[in-house]
Amino acid sequence: MAYLNRFYDPPEDRFSELLERTGTTQENISCPVAAIIAAVKAEGDEALLRFTEEFDKVTLSSLRIPTSEIQKAEELVDETLKKALAVAKANIEAFHQAQSAEGERLEREGIALWRKIVPIDRVGLYVPGGSAPLISTVLMLAIPAQVAGCKEIVLCTPPDRDGRVNPAILYAAQLCGVNEIYRVGGAQAIGAMATGTASIKKVDKIYGPGNRWVTEAKTQVGSALCAIDLPAGPSEVMVVADSFADPVFVASDLLSQAEHGPDSQAMLIICADREDGELYADAVEKAIAEQLKQLERKAALEASLANSRLFIIPSLEGCARLANAYASEHLIINLQNEKKEEQLLSMITNAGSIFLGPWSPESSGDYASGTNHTLPTGGWARGYSGLSTDSFIKKITVQRLSREGLENLAPTLAAMADAEGLKAHRRAVDVRLGEER
Amino acid sequence: MAYLNRFYDPPEDRFSELLERTGTTQENISCPVAAIIAAVKAEGDEALLRFTEEFDKVTLSSLRIPTSEIQKAEELVDETLKKALAVAKANIEAFHQAQSAEGERLEREGIALWRKIVPIDRVGLYVPGGSAPLISTVLMLAIPAQVAGCKEIVLCTPPDRDGRVNPAILYAAQLCGVNEIYRVGGAQAIGAMATGTASIKKVDKIYGPGNRWVTEAKTQVGSALCAIDLPAGPSEVMVVADSFADPVFVASDLLSQAEHGPDSQAMLIICADREDGELYADAVEKAIAEQLKQLERKAALEASLANSRLFIIPSLEGCARLANAYASEHLIINLQNEKKEEQLLSMITNAGSIFLGPWSPESSGDYASGTNHTLPTGGWARGYSGLSTDSFIKKITVQRLSREGLENLAPTLAAMADAEGLKAHRRAVDVRLGEER
Repeated sequence: MAYLNRFYDPPEDRFSELLERTGTTQENISCPVAAIIAAVKAEGDEALLRFTEEFDKVTLSSLRIPTSEIQKAEELVDETLKKALAVAKANIEAFHQAQSAEGERLEREGIALWRKIVPIDRVGLYVPGGSAPLISTVLMLAIPAQVAGCKEIVLCTPPDRDGRVNPAILYAAQLCGVNEIYRVGGAQAIGAMATGTASIKKVDKIYGPGNRWVTEAKTQVGSALCAIDLPAGPSEVMVVADSFADPVFVASDLLSQAEHGPDSQAMLIICADREDGELYADAVEKAIAEQLKQLERKAALEASLANSRLFIIPSLEGCARLANAYASEHLIINLQNEKKEEQLLSMITNAGSIFLGPWSPESSGDYASGTNHTLPTGGWARGYSGLSTDSFIKKITVQRLSREGLENLAPTLAAMADAEGLKAHRRAVDVRLGEER
Repeated sequence: MAYLNRFYDPPEDRFSELLERTGTTQENISCPVAAIIAAVKAEGDEALLRFTEEFDKVTLSSLRIPTSEIQKAEELVDETLKKALAVAKANIEAFHQAQSAEGERLEREGIALWRKIVPIDRVGLYVPGGSAPLISTVLMLAIPAQVAGCKEIVLCTPPDRDGRVNPAILYAAQLCGVNEIYRVGGAQAIGAMATGTASIKKVDKIYGPGNRWVTEAKTQVGSALCAIDLPAGPSEVMVVADSFADPVFVASDLLSQAEHGPDSQAMLIICADREDGELYADAVEKAIAEQLKQLERKAALEASLANSRLFIIPSLEGCARLANAYASEHLIINLQNEKKEEQLLSMITNAGSIFLGPWSPESSGDYASGTNHTLPTGGWARGYSGLSTDSFIKKITVQRLSREGLENLAPTLAAMADAEGLKAHRRAVDVRLGEER
């Protein structure tokens, strides 16, 4: 039995069809989401408590988690996890510190130009709920915010049916300096951070993943009310391997993507001629079958693999073309040697995050090597980068001209203002230089 | 007669009301814009030609401007403007080259992490039409794209009733290396660049200003089809002056903003105690009245000034609070001396671009000092920076772990994957280290 549909070296005009994302068509939720945001804007906390009752099935009297509860979380998290979080935090922090920007400065003939780097004042982080606590999401959002120097970092996450937030979330948050935590989730949490309520002060930018309601809410506020990090969508991986890569490793990479859910997608490109490629593909299929036996939720994994595709492409250039056309969130490159891997890397222009060689599984970047796991999905990697320290700062341009600097520039300004028909733009120069008052 | 409404040191709870933008409430155009985009997606060039006939009142047989016409434009532009464009280009290029990013690299214990800088492959620039050619817009969009190294730079701009594009636009475009130019404007141009047609290949990101139709179209494609630069809106300036600033300069700054149109806004903060502030405000009013006499379109300018407000604030800290609350696209700081100006600058966290001292009118940055004039309006400066070379590149994270590196990280990855309940994420590590196959 084959889990993956196979395609041999497809022509470029079939790329868009073969690389189509599997986002299941679902009913349009833009109206109910707009109604939630409007209610939050109009009624504030009252609406938040009502929606929490409706969607999270719990009646709360307050939204903010008291400091005492956050502090007590430390006792409730086991030592192995605490140690792991400390290692992950140190690694993520180091890489995001290396990303810190410096403002450029340029001076000539009485004109000084520079960029002033400032952290965004108040940022809002969203951490989805669910059966397991998404501690890595907390680290990936809060650490760059802290490294950037954001003064106020707010976190919203839905409560469980007892009105509680998992202590591991609270522990991870306070480890990263986040103490303003609200138990509120869904579109209502996004609405609250975007518009502000009595409890939750409006933020300047919203970050983080979420379900369809959260994603739709971010899209809606993003065009009118509040900056957002990235358009979001289901997760995906593309693996480029040749016959030197261990098929067991490749199978494990595809399966670790598949476990994210039925809408996630795992793509495999085998860089080989047709005959070798088919043999290698069989080896990967065998390894998938073996590993599926060891995993729970086999049916769900098989359903997810049904979205996946396998391509056999003879040339490295052809692999690069296909990989760039897909613009994968995660791209694993596992080839004969480092030289070949670097050669392919040099041709890649569209990807969220790239993992090189046999010892770099996606999990390393998902959790603890130091790179950020908040990445552009759904082909957005063509136009966007993943989250980084850059996402939490602004660069404000500043200029100071001396009188001489303005005099030198004046003829240029006058000619351009004249061409654009903006007389007062020209006069703002002329009155300064005494030609008119 | 007073042109500006005056307010003395308002309390913070009145800020949002007093700093409200004047965006006139207009009929909702989201449905007609969505219909245009859908038609372009379905019918391609045919729809583009039809909408051009409908909105631009001209029947075209082709959209792309032939190379011969672009080359011929050079003969039609006068020498003074050519010289000005050369100076402006050199200055803008120098500052945007200084912004070029380098990828960070971090190595430790068998883990190498870095960011690979790549230009966005194909970018689409929109230049609005109108009575005067917006040559500065061409420079501000095309130069950073060229500096970033974008392989394909596309420009769309509406044709006039003779089906032509102003030669100054064509000349400025080819000066900045742009040769793929289409005579198509409005929501249909944005739809074409976002979805692709037979003539216009889909782009990876869309940049540039436009009227309400263009802005709405960018918002719509930005959430589903194509990356965009910034949410757009009417232009605005805030001037912070004290009684040492020449009131004639200040008046000219307010008027040069007002000439952008009735929806643009000019705000003035006078940093002074009440009595001095009122006297200074009178001097500015007098200078406005004088300068209005010299300008055309007096009625339009007066209408625009009616949106403007004047605040008298005694402390520098108070001025910073108000300026940060407004988050102005342009912020002019014109105070007693450089030290005071720098002191206020150090407190500013929200602004698009800042102009320091008496010799730095907004026109310098609008045209030729070197900073970019595509800036966040409408308060978006709280969460966004203006356009820069950064806007045309992506930073892709890359990692390579050695076997030892993965071994060191494995316990951390296992603990975190276990906590999040993602078994296959853990297995992708375990199979590599031979603990399971």
